[in-house]
Parts: sequence; C-alpha cells; structure tokens
Amino acid sequence: MNATKPLRLGLIGAGRMGSFHGRTAALHVPGACLAAIADPTPGQAARLAQELEVAKVYSDPQQLLDDPDIDGVLIGAPSALHCELVVGAARAGKGIFCEKPMSWSMEEIDRAIAAAKAAGVILQCGFNRRFAKSFRAAHEAVAAGRIGTPQSLRSLTRDPAFGNPAGFRKWGIFLETLIHDFDTLNYLNPGARATEVHVMADALIAPRYKDRGLLDTAVVSIRYDNGAIAVAEASFQAVYGYDVRAEVFGSAGMLSMGSIAQSDLLSYGSDGIRADTQRMDTDLLRDAYIAELNHFAHCLRSGETPRATGEDARAALAIACTCIESVEQGKAIQL
Amino acid sequence: MNATKPLRLGLIGAGRMGSFHGRTAALHVPGACLAAIADPTPGQAARLAQELEVAKVYSDPQQLLDDPDIDGVLIGAPSALHCELVVGAARAGKGIFCEKPMSWSMEEIDRAIAAAKAAGVILQCGFNRRFAKSFRAAHEAVAAGRIGTPQSLRSLTRDPAFGNPAGFRKWGIFLETLIHDFDTLNYLNPGARATEVHVMADALIAPRYKDRGLLDTAVVSIRYDNGAIAVAEASFQAVYGYDVRAEVFGSAGMLSMGSIAQSDLLSYGSDGIRADTQRMDTDLLRDAYIAELNHFAHCLRSGETPRATGEDARAALAIACTCIESVEQGKAIQL
Amino acid sequence: MNATKPLRLGLIGAGRMGSFHGRTAALHVPGACLAAIADPTPGQAARLAQELEVAKVYSDPQQLLDDPDIDGVLIGAPSALHCELVVGAARAGKGIFCEKPMSWSMEEIDRAIAAAKAAGVILQCGFNRRFAKSFRAAHEAVAAGRIGTPQSLRSLTRDPAFGNPAGFRKWGIFLETLIHDFDTLNYLNPGARATEVHVMADALIAPRYKDRGLLDTAVVSIRYDNGAIAVAEASFQAVYGYDVRAEVFGSAGMLSMGSIAQSDLLSYGSDGIRADTQRMDTDLLRDAYIAELNHFAHCLRSGETPRATGEDARAALAIACTCIESVEQGKAIQL
Amino acid sequence: MNATKPLRLGLIGAGRMGSFHGRTAALHVPGACLAAIADPTPGQAARLAQELEVAKVYSDPQQLLDDPDIDGVLIGAPSALHCELVVGAARAGKGIFCEKPMSWSMEEIDRAIAAAKAAGVILQCGFNRRFAKSFRAAHEAVAAGRIGTPQSLRSLTRDPAFGNPAGFRKWGIFLETLIHDFDTLNYLNPGARATEVHVMADALIAPRYKDRGLLDTAVVSIRYDNGAIAVAEASFQAVYGYDVRAEVFGSAGMLSMGSIAQSDLLSYGSDGIRADTQRMDTDLLRDAYIAELNHFAHCLRSGETPRATGEDARAALAIACTCIESVEQGKAIQL
Repeated sequence: MNATKPLRLGLIGAGRMGSFHGRTAALHVPGACLAAIADPTPGQAARLAQELEVAKVYSDPQQLLDDPDIDGVLIGAPSALHCELVVGAARAGKGIFCEKPMSWSMEEIDRAIAAAKAAGVILQCGFNRRFAKSFRAAHEAVAAGRIGTPQSLRSLTRDPAFGNPAGFRKWGIFLETLIHDFDTLNYLNPGARATEVHVMADALIAPRYKDRGLLDTAVVSIRYDNGAIAVAEASFQAVYGYDVRAEVFGSAGMLSMGSIAQSDLLSYGSDGIRADTQRMDTDLLRDAYIAELNHFAHCLRSGETPRATGEDARAALAIACTCIESVEQGKAIQL
Repeated sequence: MNATKPLRLGLIGAGRMGSFHGRTAALHVPGACLAAIADPTPGQAARLAQELEVAKVYSDPQQLLDDPDIDGVLIGAPSALHCELVVGAARAGKGIFCEKPMSWSMEEIDRAIAAAKAAGVILQCGFNRRFAKSFRAAHEAVAAGRIGTPQSLRSLTRDPAFGNPAGFRKWGIFLETLIHDFDTLNYLNPGARATEVHVMADALIAPRYKDRGLLDTAVVSIRYDNGAIAVAEASFQAVYGYDVRAEVFGSAGMLSMGSIAQSDLLSYGSDGIRADTQRMDTDLLRDAYIAELNHFAHCLRSGETPRATGEDARAALAIACTCIESVEQGKAIQL
Repeated sequence: MNATKPLRLGLIGAGRMGSFHGRTAALHVPGACLAAIADPTPGQAARLAQELEVAKVYSDPQQLLDDPDIDGVLIGAPSALHCELVVGAARAGKGIFCEKPMSWSMEEIDRAIAAAKAAGVILQCGFNRRFAKSFRAAHEAVAAGRIGTPQSLRSLTRDPAFGNPAGFRKWGIFLETLIHDFDTLNYLNPGARATEVHVMADALIAPRYKDRGLLDTAVVSIRYDNGAIAVAEASFQAVYGYDVRAEVFGSAGMLSMGSIAQSDLLSYGSDGIRADTQRMDTDLLRDAYIAELNHFAHCLRSGETPRATGEDARAALAIACTCIESVEQGKAIQL
Repeated sequence: MNATKPLRLGLIGAGRMGSFHGRTAALHVPGACLAAIADPTPGQAARLAQELEVAKVYSDPQQLLDDPDIDGVLIGAPSALHCELVVGAARAGKGIFCEKPMSWSMEEIDRAIAAAKAAGVILQCGFNRRFAKSFRAAHEAVAAGRIGTPQSLRSLTRDPAFGNPAGFRKWGIFLETLIHDFDTLNYLNPGARATEVHVMADALIAPRYKDRGLLDTAVVSIRYDNGAIAVAEASFQAVYGYDVRAEVFGSAGMLSMGSIAQSDLLSYGSDGIRADTQRMDTDLLRDAYIAELNHFAHCLRSGETPRATGEDARAALAIACTCIESVEQGKAIQL
C-alpha cells in the first residue's frame, strides 16, 4: 500500500453505530476514505452513501468483501453477524475492524481469530476506551509500574436511557454492555488473567421483564491471577447521561478516570454550581471513536498489531460468558 | 439535667481513638466536660487527664461506671471489651457512646442493645460518616426521594498504612474496617435490609500472613431487599492517604461523596496540578468526629434517639458476620 | 495567667458579627469563656448573654473595659467605633481582637496601634482568610519560596445579597469589603508593599444610588514593590452565594484557593451535575472564624504576636484609602 | 462551489503556526484539502508540502493568490504581513482566514476589512477561543441572558515559556498575546463596547530587557459601555503549562471556563493528587483550532459570516492600541 494512495475502507452495517463509524471513517481519518457501504436493509446503505458521497453501495456484505478495491472493512452489523463477517473478511484478505462484541460465543470467536490469523490480516475490536486519552494514559502508567501492583479495580458503564425494554436481548448486559468494562479491567491490569467471577444482577429499571430474563443492573466481581480484585458495574438507565468511569488502585498509588461533564464550563446560579453532562456514547467518547479508526488505518498501513485485538475480545468475552454461568448457577465460577 | 449544668462525660479507654474522643469531648463539645478517665494501662489515663485537666482518673472502668457524677460514657476501649462495657454502663444508668464496632458477635450485641433498652439509656455507635456533612446530606437526599429508588451503591475505606501486619486480627477487615462501609451503605439506602452477601478477599499487601488468615483487601457485594446492589471495598494500605468515599445511584439520579484533598488549595508547578491529601482518619473526618460527640451530648440532654443506634451497629455487624461465612464457605450467603 | 484558669473574654457589640464572635468564643474556644457582653442597644447584650449563659451584661462598653475580670476583648461594634474601643481597651490593659476594618482613617489607626503598643497588649485584626486552611497553606508555600517570586495575584469577594442599598456607606466597598482582599493580597505576597493603586468601580447592582456615591462593583489593580501586580475584585451581590477566592502566580508556580461548594457532595440528575453553595460568610469561613479566635486566645496566653496585626490592618487600610483617592481623581495613585 | 468538490485551501506561511494550520486543513477538515503552500523561506513550504502531499509550492505568496484553483487562503505568515496579505487575498477574490492579530495598526486593519468587504469575500480572524467548546457555550449562555447583565469579567493567557526574551517585539504582550483576551472579553460580553482601558505592566520574567521596552506581565482593566468591568491578564511564562481561562459574572449568575488539565486522569500517590497539564497552545486548544478551520470551510461554502470577523479583530485591536497609550501616558485612556 502506498502512503500517498488513500486507504479504501468498506463499511458493513449502516445502522446507528455503523453509520457513526462510517462518518468517522469518511470525515476524520486522514489518509483513508470510505469507499463502499453494504447493508441489506433497503435504502439504508444508499442514504448514508449519499450523505458521505460514497460511490459504491451493496446490499450484500459479501459483494463488499469481494470488491478488490477495498483495503479494510468496518463491521458495524448486528452483533450476531460479527463473527461470520470477520471470517468472511479474513478469507477475502481484508484488514478488519469489528465493533464490540466480536461474538457471543467462545467457539465462534476462536474461529474468527483463527481465520484472521490464517489470512494474516489485522483484526481490531471496537473497545473504544482503550483509545480514550485518560484510559490509555492510565494503562500506560500501570504498565510502567507507576502504581505498583494493581490490587483493586473498578469499571462502570451506565447507559443514559433504556429505550425499549421489550426489545432486550437476554444476557445483553454482560455481552453487549459490560464487555466494555471487562476489557477495561483487563486493559488496566495488563498481563493479568481473570480467574473467578461472581455476579449480582437484577431487573430494577424494568422489573416486569424480569421473568423473561431481563437483567438491567449488574455488579460483577472478578478475581485476577495477580491477586487483584475488580468490580464491573452496569446500569441500563442513568438519568444524568452516559457514565463511563474507572479506577485502578495499586500498591504504590491510584488512578481514576472518566468524566461525564460536557466541557470545562461551570455555571453558578441561585441553585448552586452546575455542569452539563454528556448524553450519548458518541459524544462522551467521540475522540476515542476517532482515535480508534485512525489507529485501525495506521495498523492497516503498517501491519502493526492493533491496540485492541481479537485475543482481547476473547478475554473479555470469556468473562462475560462466565457471568452467565454465575447467574445461572447462583455462585462464583472459576474461569 | 439542667441546661446550664455542663454534661459530665467519662472516657473509658485512653488509647489512640479513646484519647482522640477524650480531647474532642473536653475541647469541642460546648456544654459538656470530660469529668473522668478510666484505663487499666498504668499511667495512660493519668497522662491524658493531665493534658486535659480532668480531675478523676480510674484504673478500673467499673469505678467510672459507679461514679454518680458521670452523665454519659465514651467507650474507646479495645473492641473486644465494648459490649461488656455497654452492658455495664447501661446497668449504671449512663448514656453510652461506643466506638465502632460495638461487638464482634451477634449474641453479644443483642445483649448490649437489650441492656441499654432495659435501662432506658441512649446508646450511640461511633459510625462517624453519618456525621460527615456530605454523607449526611446524601442520606437526607435519598430519604427525601431525590434520586428515586436506590439501585446501586458503593462505599470504600482505604487505610493509609498497614503498620504492623503481624498484629492483625483475623476477620478485622470486615469487623473493624468494612463495618463502616456496611453502615454507610445501610445509611444511604434507608429502610432497606441486606439479604445476601458475597466476598472476594485476599492478603495482597502482606501476603506472607495469608496462611495465618490475614485478609487485607476485600470486595463485598451486598444485595438489599429493595433490589439495590451494593459494593463495599477496603484496603489496609493506600499510599496516598486515608480514602473514604461513597456513591449511591438511583432511578432518578446519583450522589457521590468523599474527598481526600486536605483543602481547596491547588498547586500548579512544572509537574502539573497537585493537591495535598489527608493522611489520618482523625484529620479526614475531624468535623464528623466533633459532630458525633456533640450529637451524643444533644441526645443525652434531650433523650432523642441517636442518629447511629445499637440497631444500626447490629445491622452492620450482621453483614460483617455474613462476610466471614461467605469467605469460609466460598460462596454467597443469605442473611 | 494560669493555664488551668480559663481566659475570660468580653464581647463589645452584640449585632450580627458580634454575636457570631460571641457564640464562637463561648462555644468553640477551649480554655476560654465569654465572661461579659456590652452593647448599648437595649436588650441586645442581655439576649445573647441569656443564650450563652454569660453572667455579666453591660450597656456601656467602658464598664466592660473597666472590669478587672476580663483578660481580652472582642470588638464587634460598628466599624466607626472600632478605633476608639481599641484605644480604650489598650488603656485598660486588655488584649484586643478587633473585627475588620480596624478603622476608616489612617490617623486613627495609627493612634490605635500606638495605644496597643504603649500598653503592651496584643492587637489582632479580624482578617478571617489568614485563618482559612487553604489561604494559610498558600501563604506558607509562598513564604517558603515554593512558587518563586510572586508576579501576579488575584483576590475576590462577592457578597451574596445586597440587602438594603439605601443603607450603604460611601466607600464601603473599599473600606468594608475589599479590605479583606487587600489584606489577602498582602498576605499572599509576604514582605512586599503596595506602591500604586488604580480603581475601576461602578454602581451596577443598584444604579439608582450611583449619584449618591454608591459603588457596588469594583476592580482594583495594585502594584507591589517586588514587581507583582495584583487585582482585587468585589461585588455586593452574587446570586450563587458567598464567593471568596484567590490566586497567586509566581516565577515557579501558581496557587489557587477558595471554593464555594458546601461540601464534597455532588448530585447528578437530569439537569447535569450539581453542587450546593455556601450562602453566608459565617458558613463559608466558619472554620476560619473559629481558628482566629482560638489563635487570639493562644496569643493572649503566650504573648505571641497575632497572625493578623494592627500593622496588617494599617497596610490594608492604606490601600483602601488610596482606592478612594483613585476614584476621586480618576487615575492611578502612588502610595 | 459544488458540495461534492473539495474546497481547495492555500496556506501562506509555513512557520510554527502556519504549519499547524496547514496540517489541520489537510487532515482535519472534511470536504477541504490543502492545495498549495507559499513561503519565501527556502525549503520551508516544500518540506510541509512533502509531509502533507500538497502538490503546489510557491515561494511568493502572490503566486498562490494568483492561483485560480484556490478557494480560500489561510494566512499564517508573520503578523507584520497579515494585513497586506488580507488585502491581496481579497483582491484575488479568495475567502480569508487570517491568524491573529490581523494587524498592529488601526488604519491598516480598516483597509483590510474594507478590502474584504469590497471584494465580497469572507474574512475570519484566528480567535481560537471562540471555537473552544466551553467558551462558546458560555458566550451563548450570556447572549441568551442566562447570567443576566454582565458586571465583571476576567480572561487570562499565560504562555508556558518565554523562549528567547531578546527576540521580543515591543508591545507584543498587548498585540500578540492579550489580543486573545480582549476578544474573549468582547465575546463574553456580547453587544458591549470597551470605553476605557488602564494597564499595569512590567518586565518581571526578563527584567534586564525592561529598559528596551519589554513587558512580559500585564494586568489590563477595561470598562464597557454596559457598565461591566473586565480584567485581562497575561504572563509570558507559566512553569505549569499553557493557561487560558475566563470568567463572566452577571446579575443572575456566573460562568467559569478553561482548564489546563490534559485529561480527566487523576493520579493519587504518596505526594498527593496530581493531574498532568497541557504545555502547548496547539494541545490545549487543539479541538478549537480544528473547529475554527472547519468553520472557515463552512463559511466559505455557505457564505455565512464567520464567528470571528474582521470587525471582531478590529475591536480587540482597538483595546490593544489603547493599552499602549495607557502605558505610554501612565493613565487610564478612553477609547
């Protein structure tokens, strides 16, 4: 690939997150362009293509994978299709960015990782927090030993609003939401491996869906092989906005990160001091989303291993799957 | 008791915390005076009595309890003696402030509570955070419904330094340290009752004491009967100071509290922005310690029920005892 | 004076601030008691004396000054009477705490300082910020050279509400309000002397009183003999509470101090993040008010020079008087 | 101009700021490309052109202005050339983004504004703070009346390091540095006009250049026609980084903005709590620099008036020129 020739990226899946990634790729990744969009939903790919002046539109993702013009693909399709698309993209020799979760099953993710490995293509997972400035700096500080040995960690995700409880997917809180926190904890405890998981979870926001299996609030305790004990928390509805924070405490110090304030503006009025909050993941983590696609482009060009790999996705998924077991068996489970 | 006659308080136990309470009572509780000090350690009571100009010194706490001049007692003796002293003080008809933990055993604490009840004396437990400004305001906001129904909570205590690991008491992390957090969680989830407890704990700071039963790092998950899921965390050694924080998240908002900064001074230098931290519980929570003894004096005069009762101590102890079971059985335990 | 005999303090002036100091002296100064109150307003001294169980009540301050039982006096009378009372107290051989401003005139304050000196009594001025934890730590850091040579400073005072504009005193913004900031700037620039003053001021809150001489908003620039340039700002009405902050910038760093948040409690709701603010000087600076009277008691006992002297009051007054000249002449004035 | 055809921007001046703008234009302005670079310094334009893969390189800015392919120019040349280049660009019919200050002289800037007007081209000045998120939100809050009528304001700029004092330009602190603050104050006090200016300034960082006219520290008081009194402060050397903050206080509230922390990461260690700071304007205000060039591109396409106009540059310059008079005459000057 020539440095002067723009990277040609193809987007698979033009829903909310797919479109967001498409816009990011088209507008905020210097040296890359969005060259094709594939989505089977009638009109969806075309609409985005028009907005972003993308020439090629496909209704079948395989067409995009077959397009020899495409250097790398961004997989933003529904989670259930991720692994199949990763395997297909790997076979087509494309570099792969796959939105999290890469898979809901360990077998499947192993197949995906193996396919990428066999094809020699890069495989990056959409763990955005690894690209947030403070989370990355914290990781590097921990890796450099600046807080000694990690002893306790915390990561939390609170979504701003639980749109349609009826449409929930069973186990989504672990596989779709906390997967971020599991990866964050792994990232902030570099080199360590989760060995035990215990879950307390419930349907507190939409209790009438509880008997159908909804869990919308969860606290997960995780023990690591370096002794560290971590907590991952999630809620599907925080009225104050999108809340993503973490903390890592070690033998020589502590790091905290994450802020939901919109900016450094403070308003002082008769009701006290106020700061506006971020309401959307794509606002709160905008810079991280941009950084992760730039990183993908960088890895595509350089062949460097991405900062969030298939193995990272697998490690987080392993925790998520163990959470399900913990809930089903009502006890702590060894990984 | 006449409003114009100062309350006469007697201190039992003149070690570190006992002396601190004695100084607070003598110097920072308007309308009260420290009238007697009892401590069996030779010289200990006398030294403090001289410092604070207290006339009466006893080597046997029973002498102090028998002193008809004393209106109320501050129990700052070693934890193991707390309950016996509470029972004795109740029989002597004295109002009682007892440092936490009130007891290490459920039977004993029931006996203490019953004794105070039978004697009609007030019984206050030294849960200092109930008297910290932000914790109290948070409790009141929750009680007033301002964050809706609590759904998830967190409370943590990190001691600044693990002086002498060899001198640890088994289960101390639950019975001496996390007892504060269990009470804080109860306080921030008013009216709710803990129903299930799970512990992950380890000896990470002083691992060589692990096989003798040391636990110096712990994460406790607690389920409440209103659905809320709480986490209590403790560490015996935080190099950055004494760290006490809490958070309560509900259906209509979230409250966070606790700061280890010494003051609102910020220093900007070539190494960035810095704030000094508090290194001692008695510095971090100084105002709370003063407030709790003033509250005790107020309750002594007015007969009002203290803000931290024997029943509160019992509820926290019940969680601590269940933690021990959880560690011993390696599983979650129902209360 | 015997360490075991409580210091006997007498309060002159039982209005808002006088009463506040009286309560502080009676309740929060270990080793001292409030022994007498004098106030010519019928009933005012008696009411406070009853509240605080003070035995002696005088309608004429001279009676209190003549009382041989009194070790030190707290002057909380109207500003116009301060100097006369200081002189009287000095002649009576009493140690003196005088609320700021000590005087509105340079001649008068010189007379007061000379009287105290001649009598060999201590004279402390009520510059509360010198006793606020962060301001004091900042002063010490500057004095220790930790920010190098001060180059620019800022101090501001914003009162919460301009009760009755009709009752304003001409030049009050300099003599009553900014006097605090002038002293703060001197305190944060230790050893330096103000050499030039320029004022911009106006009646913005109550403009209809402007032609009667009201100034309710002011910005004062001050040049010091060590080169530092300072700004003092004041407003008589901040809807968000009582606002007192300062900043000192030097060749090797910067210090900022002052926070109007009530506590470390943060509330997160659908309208963002919120913190409650302090609304009263006596709330915002409560600990500083307590510390300054304890310091006064300490100096009375030890003979130590107070941390806020008559000379400090004079230095701040000199700036305030120069401000008046600057407004009257519409230009910068050399001190 | 067709929406699908990228805007073609030309950069004049490839020094530090020019290159930064060139990179921003080339990499972070979707829908635009950097098509040409002109710089008379041998090799300077070529080096940047190679880095950014820009095809056209000119040694004479006029060649770039004559290039019919260029839609808009970014003027990053030395300040002394700004106005001449604005006039030339206007005559050539190019849209113009001119780095601040647009000029050092009122006559010249009037000529520049008139030229742009006559040519009907847009003219945007590089006042980056108007594009910083918090400053913009503050402006909008003030304009919407949310803090009532502005009564007092503050804006400050502290550069991180005074590289080579010998190379200073006389009056640079007003014309190059504080020009930002003058514009910020105008921006936060929308619709108001400065009427009076007073300066206190000195050479405190490099005092040996003082007699050659250096001023490296300044405090400027500004009175506005709506009564508001503002302070602008500058220093050429803050050891802790690049410091840009502002505050606007009004009859109904206060807004504060600006933070020098690098991110939301906090580090807790044995020396307290720490946050890293930004050291470069291009780091601290990176998002604002990107936003201002995107805004320029937007205005070029839409014909919309930029958020920072030639008139805004003129208003700030008028204050800066009055500052010089104030220093020269040693008094406050009416505008």
